Amino acid sequence: MAVITPSRRVRKTPFSPGVEAAGVKAYTAYNHMLLPTMFESVEADAAHLKRHVQVWDVSCERQVEIRGPDALRLMKLISPRDMDRMEADQCYYVPTVDARGGMLNDPVTIKLADDHYWMSVADGDLWQYALGIATALGLEVEIGEPDVSPLAVQGPKADELMARVFGDAVREIRFFRYKRLPFEGRDFVVARSGWSKQGGYEIYVEGADYGMPLWNALFGAGLDLNVRAGCPNNIERIESGLLSFGSDMRRENTPYECGLGRFCNSPEPYIGKAALAEQAAHGPDRIIRPIVIEGDIGACTESWPLVDGSRWVGQVASAVWSPEFGVNVAIGMVEKSHWTPGTRIELQTEHGPRMAVVQDKFWR
Amino acid sequence: MAVITPSRRVRKTPFSPGVEAAGVKAYTAYNHMLLPTMFESVEADAAHLKRHVQVWDVSCERQVEIRGPDALRLMKLISPRDMDRMEADQCYYVPTVDARGGMLNDPVTIKLADDHYWMSVADGDLWQYALGIATALGLEVEIGEPDVSPLAVQGPKADELMARVFGDAVREIRFFRYKRLPFEGRDFVVARSGWSKQGGYEIYVEGADYGMPLWNALFGAGLDLNVRAGCPNNIERIESGLLSFGSDMRRENTPYECGLGRFCNSPEPYIGKAALAEQAAHGPDRIIRPIVIEGDIGACTESWPLVDGSRWVGQVASAVWSPEFGVNVAIGMVEKSHWTPGTRIELQTEHGPRMAVVQDKFWR
Repeated sequence: MAVITPSRRVRKTPFSPGVEAAGVKAYTAYNHMLLPTMFESVEADAAHLKRHVQVWDVSCERQVEIRGPDALRLMKLISPRDMDRMEADQCYYVPTVDARGGMLNDPVTIKLADDHYWMSVADGDLWQYALGIATALGLEVEIGEPDVSPLAVQGPKADELMARVFGDAVREIRFFRYKRLPFEGRDFVVARSGWSKQGGYEIYVEGADYGMPLWNALFGAGLDLNVRAGCPNNIERIESGLLSFGSDMRRENTPYECGLGRFCNSPEPYIGKAALAEQAAHGPDRIIRPIVIEGDIGACTESWPLVDGSRWVGQVASAVWSPEFGVNVAIGMVEKSHWTPGTRIELQTEHGPRMAVVQDKFWR
Repeated sequence: MAVITPSRRVRKTPFSPGVEAAGVKAYTAYNHMLLPTMFESVEADAAHLKRHVQVWDVSCERQVEIRGPDALRLMKLISPRDMDRMEADQCYYVPTVDARGGMLNDPVTIKLADDHYWMSVADGDLWQYALGIATALGLEVEIGEPDVSPLAVQGPKADELMARVFGDAVREIRFFRYKRLPFEGRDFVVARSGWSKQGGYEIYVEGADYGMPLWNALFGAGLDLNVRAGCPNNIERIESGLLSFGSDMRRENTPYECGLGRFCNSPEPYIGKAALAEQAAHGPDRIIRPIVIEGDIGACTESWPLVDGSRWVGQVASAVWSPEFGVNVAIGMVEKSHWTPGTRIELQTEHGPRMAVVQDKFWR
């Protein structure tokens, strides 16, 4: 396997010294930044995550900052979600779409003030889309990428570890809500969120200089909790049905196809609303489904077609062996003709044909 | 060094089987795609490139396709360059900017027809900016990413190799011009361009299925020319003063700072024109300069500050040992106070302080 070449263009993060010292074995690049993908092994990392607590360098969840008198107006244009209902301490999952309803990104949006938002983006320069719209309409907003690097603390012991560093106030944070909590004299946004279903937090570390002190504080406080460096885990996230934008869903997909229709509830004439009206009324023609793949599978590094004879009926773009559930767990986009749970479909992988079986629900 | 984890999100290319078979040792990610960075070693790859001919998988130079009745109108909005002067077979280097004149990308634009352009982009989702503007203004254009994967043929023997595969017509292609030339019954855009100064071509391979047949045809025809798989080479490109968007220049820089002022000649009121007027008249306050760094340097994987006492006077973001010129060659962005050739400036690297010396010109 080839190594990754770091550069200023594919940036290191404020936590890179900690990540390297912890023995990171693999990276991906995400939003022009390094994102660890493995420490011990994906299997061992998953098992540890489910029992203990991990600290994840997810700096690559860059923030698109939208700030100014027209911030809410811009948010209402690009968000299918009803921004007027958003409360001051809330995190909103927002599947942003183009004029045809095709997904552009799926950020978690944080409202810092009525005229100030952060969109914590998946892999893609959504700020360029926002900037294009704001520029063309002459909106009074600043759009940029602030010096904010999220650090996730995930796993069943996350509450205990976070309480030791940020105080018991963290325990009161509700799911997809945040509090501003102090660390070394600075207040950070601390949200109950993160890309696992093991529970935990994301700390929006504002100011790169605070990165390693916070990293060290968490590791120093968590020795007896068996805290380790971790990262978004490909086994746990597929078992949990957490979708990866760019792999499981892309611009050719609508939020309805991705099971995200409930987030398209804005009463405003947002961009893409008219295009989504048909699917809002009658549902999509294809949908994300959990899939079990029979037999041995190799690494899933590209889109695997689901076929019925010579007809394309969907694809799988994430698949991995799950030691916990004893099957190959996968995420597929499946056409209506084949999406009934129990349907068996031929899957064309780069390692040969396999049989895929549509499931009723994800594993957690 | 950690390995890179491939996925559908960080895509393989139509040439990946050839690249892997050739023994690629390192990759970077570029436009959500794998880009090889090393085969034998960066030094050996550079030496070979300067003597023979290499085939480069630069599929990651994705095309932003702009097509439709308003295509030229959109191009005139986002291009500082005079699009009316562009001829039908021309490639235009276009430093695109935001409303403040900050660089968003530096694509090579190809005019396929009056209503049809490809922008071969550096690392960044420029299509999202174009889409935002087109959407907000209601322009009649389609903006997307076609199935086009550039393959570069670079080196002093590139003309000979290309003539064997595409015929002697390739020899008549002028610099930054293109011809449509047939391969296996399909016409491809073949341009005299590429990210080295060793001469050569870029073939815009339309249709992923043609990738490996063309790869194999080039290698089959070039055995006696010592053809090898290669990639943009960090030594050769720094010696040549070829700038990497994202490393050497970013949104905080204007085209004038990057020595690209001559490409800002549009008579139209393009976005950013007003902001650039001051620099157009009086020049920038900092500029890209060739730099020699004294002593041993380690890998340059981040931005190294140039300092005068406690004052920041620029930075270096690309630096490497040049066996040919016997110095550490580097690219810096240097403030006016220190940009005179011969100026010695302290450079703060992650490996300790070094002395940087401003040069008059790049090495070729």
